[in-house]
Parts: sequence; C-alpha cells; structure tokens
Amino acid sequence: MEDARSDQNDKTAGIVIIGNEVLSGKVQDTNSPFLLRELYEQGVRVLRVVTIPDDVPTIADEVRAASARFDFVLTSGGVGPTHDDLTFEGIARAFDVPLREDPTLKALLERHFAGRLTPAALRMAMVPSGTRLVRGGDMRYPLCVVRNVYVFPGVPEILRAKFQVVRHELQGTPFLQVRIFTQQKETALAASLEATLDRVPGVTIGSYPSYDTREYRVMLTLESHDAHQLQEARDILLSLLDGSQVVGVDDPSEITRTPGEP
Amino acid sequence: MEDARSDQNDKTAGIVIIGNEVLSGKVQDTNSPFLLRELYEQGVRVLRVVTIPDDVPTIADEVRAASARFDFVLTSGGVGPTHDDLTFEGIARAFDVPLREDPTLKALLERHFAGRLTPAALRMAMVPSGTRLVRGGDMRYPLCVVRNVYVFPGVPEILRAKFQVVRHELQGTPFLQVRIFTQQKETALAASLEATLDRVPGVTIGSYPSYDTREYRVMLTLESHDAHQLQEARDILLSLLDGSQVVGVDDPSEITRTPGEP
Repeated sequence: MEDARSDQNDKTAGIVIIGNEVLSGKVQDTNSPFLLRELYEQGVRVLRVVTIPDDVPTIADEVRAASARFDFVLTSGGVGPTHDDLTFEGIARAFDVPLREDPTLKALLERHFAGRLTPAALRMAMVPSGTRLVRGGDMRYPLCVVRNVYVFPGVPEILRAKFQVVRHELQGTPFLQVRIFTQQKETALAASLEATLDRVPGVTIGSYPSYDTREYRVMLTLESHDAHQLQEARDILLSLLDGSQVVGVDDPSEITRTPGEP
Repeated sequence: MEDARSDQNDKTAGIVIIGNEVLSGKVQDTNSPFLLRELYEQGVRVLRVVTIPDDVPTIADEVRAASARFDFVLTSGGVGPTHDDLTFEGIARAFDVPLREDPTLKALLERHFAGRLTPAALRMAMVPSGTRLVRGGDMRYPLCVVRNVYVFPGVPEILRAKFQVVRHELQGTPFLQVRIFTQQKETALAASLEATLDRVPGVTIGSYPSYDTREYRVMLTLESHDAHQLQEARDILLSLLDGSQVVGVDDPSEITRTPGEP
C-alpha cells in the first residue's frame, strides 16, 4: 500500500459518510459501497471511508484532513433542512470560510416551494463561500463542490444520479488486474506472495479465501497501473506456486482494465 | 450529539474495518452494519466507523485514537496468514508493545495444521503482549482482546459467532425511543424540532423522510436513556406539530428499549 500510495499515477479519494441514523443502525449505508465500486472502476484509489455523527467539529476535522490528503473527497448526508443537517457548516469550518446564501440555490428553492419557503428550507441555500455548482443530466438541483470536496445528499437514488454528472471529474488511471485461482491454502501461499512482492514491489496483491465454492480455495489478485510490471509479477508468482493446484489464471492477453470497464 | 456524548450513562464505541479488498469495492463490508445494529441494541453508542487499508502505521494511528476516545473498539479483518494481514502488528504499534508468540494459540495452530504448520500460519500466533483470549460457544479459535480493542476476523460468519461470545462485555444503557409519523414536510417540521431540542437538550431527535411509502412523509425519532425526559420531549413536540398531519405516534406506555430488545 505504501508503494502504491506514492505512485505518481495514482489518484486518491476519501469518503465521509455523515449521519447519526447510520451510526445507530437505523439506516444502512449503501452509498459508500456504491462509491467504492465506481471510483475503483474510474481508477481512483479510495484510502479511507469514515462514518461520523451530525456534529460540526467532527465534520470539519474529517473534511479538512481528507481534503489535504486526497485528490478527491466525497461526502454523503447532512444537507437537508433540519437541525441535524450540518454538513455545509462543517465544511465551511474545515476551510475557515463563511457560509453565504447562494443566489442560484435560493432562486431554485423559491421556485420549488412557491409561497411556502420556510426559513428552514432557505438554510439549504447557505453554502460555504467559494462553492461551485455543477448541473447536468436531469437534475433539478445542482451538486455542490467546495474545493476538492463533492457534497452528495444521503438519499441513495439522488446520490447515484448526481455521481453520473461529475463522474468525468473523478478520473484516475485505470487499474490493470490479473487473477489466479488455486486450491492451495493461504498458509501455503503466503511465502510465495511475499517473494513476488519483494521482486515487484509496485504491484498490489490480494488474497481472498473462498468459503462459498469448492472450485478454488483462494483467489489471488495482482493489480497495477503498469501492464509490463503486472505481467512480470504474474510470471514470478506462477513460477513459485504449486502448478498442480492452480485451477485458473487470467491469460496475459486478458490483462484488462478493472471489472466493469468496457 | 455533543450533549449525548457527555452523558455519563453513555458507553461509546468505534469500529475499524481493515482491508484493501473493501476499499477497492471487491468485497462489500457487511460487518459494520451488523455491529452497528447489535451495539445500538446493547445501548452502546458508536461514534465512528472507519475503513482503512492493510497498512501498519494507518492501523496503529486509528486504533490508538479510537482506544483513547471510546469505551470499546472493534476491529474487523487483517488477522490471517498472508502478507496483507497486519492488524496485530498495527495494534502492537498503537500501544507500543511487542508482538509475542502466544503459547495457547500456537498449540491450537499446531493441532489444526498437524505436520503442515508453515511459518506463515505460525504468524497467526504472534499477538500483542498483553492480549487476552476469550473462548466460548462452539469457537475452536479464541477471540483476541488487546486492552479495550476486540479483534474480529473479516469473515462475516466467524465475526458474528465471535460477537455472541463477547456480547455481555459490550454493554451500555439501553436507549429508549418514541416515534412520530407525519405527513408534514421536513422543511415545515424543522423549527418545531429545534424548539423541542432547546427545551429538552438531552434528547436526540432524528428526522427521516420516507421515499418508499405514502403512509407518512417523515418519521421522527426521539431517543434518550431517560424515560421522563423522553416523554417530556414527546409531549412538547406533539404540541408544536400540526396535529391534523400526524398519522401515527408511539404511546407513552410504549416507550421501550430499542427495537429488537426483549
């Protein structure tokens, strides 16, 4: 991981899930699994997901740290009209900028609520100074971006729609991957994995024991941005494993972008 | 949240999910949703869930901070035999204690692997000095506890079985809860929620718009360790809401422990 982290090709991200309802188990977070899959497919390496309460200092601390450390930060939740919707206040504090009323957001809210615009609804137009609004697709309401922080709502359907609109901004270098399936146990494989990493340190190796199928005991994944490096690691690892136990391996010609990519 | 956090009755917890496979979206984390539901039922308030890579300094930093701040820390993942299983090393570094070979764990591994005990397998017996082993149920292998850190494996079935064995140690004061269902919009409710919180600050109020049913627009939850306080907040809030829009409310006699509790 540390090698991968210093890779110049790497784009990194952190995800901040905001909401007491997630921490109390009332609502299951389906947003971070979605974002993790999407960002991986985009070639963006997520290095941290954190779920925190609706609390301004906590939001400020997490957003400030993540913004400094990662290329992209994605937040989810805490952008509605009630007392526990504190995400914008937290982000403003993270960057030490004031909240200000955005005229475009205010106009959209006025149109939506017609004559019934409450002070609470109007709070949704108060965003950190410097907020960029991204519109597109069939979104009635824009996505707010503050520096490198993409502020998503907690409702999964809306988050997914808004993600499509900024997908092109959240782009890294695609990961290349090779998989090896074996009947050897993890304990018997460990030394070979370490020896491979010693010789090709830029590659990332994952080891996933299977509990659902007898077709293989362990799936190994090798991963890199560099096709040459990946093939070298693949060949070294195959030479170290017990060949009679290998039940499947991706062909070198199949070195592909991550699953789900065309 | 800040009031709740300083409540003397509160037991708090942090959850640390360790694994590149979760961050790359290959494996979806089902452990933290399980632990969040269980801990809430136990009356333990989880204030942070973080997912991090298989990286010793990162594990050490997260575990050290969480151990100091929360009553309980639960980790998941990174306890197998391969190069990326670094949880015990991270915890040892968090507390600045050495790893040492535990004789009980070593004997269990020797029995399990019979003549085929590899150095990699033996790594699983290397745990931080001061580790407590908890056995029980039908677990062949103990759960390791280091100070207030409960070290669970990443495999969901095993994590769930081990949780049952230490459930009685992870106990807080049960949360009491009342729910109110209304057809009012969140924007129309916000001021009433804030007014209620001003008068009964010890209660926690949640506001959950429904997108799945027309039976109500918003479910409000009031929550406290104190039944008297809870009923006071319930009565105040009901007096502030538009009664003709309230379509359901838990009876005072139904003030109960959190859902799922007997």
